Amino acid sequence: MNFLELVKTRQSVRKYAPRAVEPEKIDQCIEAARLAPSACNSQPWKFVVLTDPELKNKVARETYNAVVQFNKFVPEAPVVVVLVMERPTLVSQIGGRIKDKDFYLMDVGIAAEHFCLQAAELGLGTCMLGWFNEKKIAALLNIPKKKRIGLIITLGYPQDDAIREKKRKTTEDVLKINTYD
Amino acid sequence: MNFLELVKTRQSVRKYAPRAVEPEKIDQCIEAARLAPSACNSQPWKFVVLTDPELKNKVARETYNAVVQFNKFVPEAPVVVVLVMERPTLVSQIGGRIKDKDFYLMDVGIAAEHFCLQAAELGLGTCMLGWFNEKKIAALLNIPKKKRIGLIITLGYPQDDAIREKKRKTTEDVLKINTYD
Repeated sequence: MNFLELVKTRQSVRKYAPRAVEPEKIDQCIEAARLAPSACNSQPWKFVVLTDPELKNKVARETYNAVVQFNKFVPEAPVVVVLVMERPTLVSQIGGRIKDKDFYLMDVGIAAEHFCLQAAELGLGTCMLGWFNEKKIAALLNIPKKKRIGLIITLGYPQDDAIREKKRKTTEDVLKINTYD
Repeated sequence: MNFLELVKTRQSVRKYAPRAVEPEKIDQCIEAARLAPSACNSQPWKFVVLTDPELKNKVARETYNAVVQFNKFVPEAPVVVVLVMERPTLVSQIGGRIKDKDFYLMDVGIAAEHFCLQAAELGLGTCMLGWFNEKKIAALLNIPKKKRIGLIITLGYPQDDAIREKKRKTTEDVLKINTYD
């Protein structure tokens, strides 16, 4: 599978088969994330992999929003991974402050996407979640109060193998040559 | 090349061969970036591809920091791509504000990494730059004052094909199971 095919294969999976994920496959996804690039090679991340079903379900329930009814599917995922944001290197912090840009958020996004692309290659489904009760999850996982959770990723075998067509802006909408306007 | 091999192949390239990049290869990198996932499918990005040598060199010079002497290599890259951050969808904006997290920075990081991974598969080298004179580059490219530039990517054939060993934290440093501590 070439990279463009892999990009098309990765999609948000919200229905999981009741099938365990092999530990070596989880390891490979973590390895792809570990090797991700980051500003000043800061690697401002830790991956907390939840395999204990009871704990995993407790965390999953803290991603559910009853009002808009989203993330209801999360407990069905056999594995949940919590990405904790760590302190970037001093150079990256100073650069980010001078340039008013949180490079570590970009870094965490990149590492999460490495994880998801690797999972897709292994036939696994993922979904990145940005909405969750950060305080409650931090308490469940003994994450220090100063740390923030960047993203949560669900992982498991998809119930359905069909690849959906991606809905994206057209190339004309996103590509400009030699000038913005 | 499987995904893990591709991840190891992608590296920051700061020495470029004096060789033009085929337009269809630039297009393929843009295509991989265009298909990137984003919070609420916001796709908060535009890619300004600089192929005009004079303009490209003017922009390149605005990434150079004379004090710490970095980004001096940028004019050597035959292509420079400027990632402009666009307004996320309303849902993503509201979510980001409630959760105090700029999801669009993660999105832009992911799209940039798709670009770089695709380039690596095509034998091209890239380097993501987070340090540049945003105001001057915005003026050169007619980018509206309200918009921000997320990242700049250099693109070209590497002068040297050797793949460097990645320096990363160990798995033990970044992986936790069922608890953070």
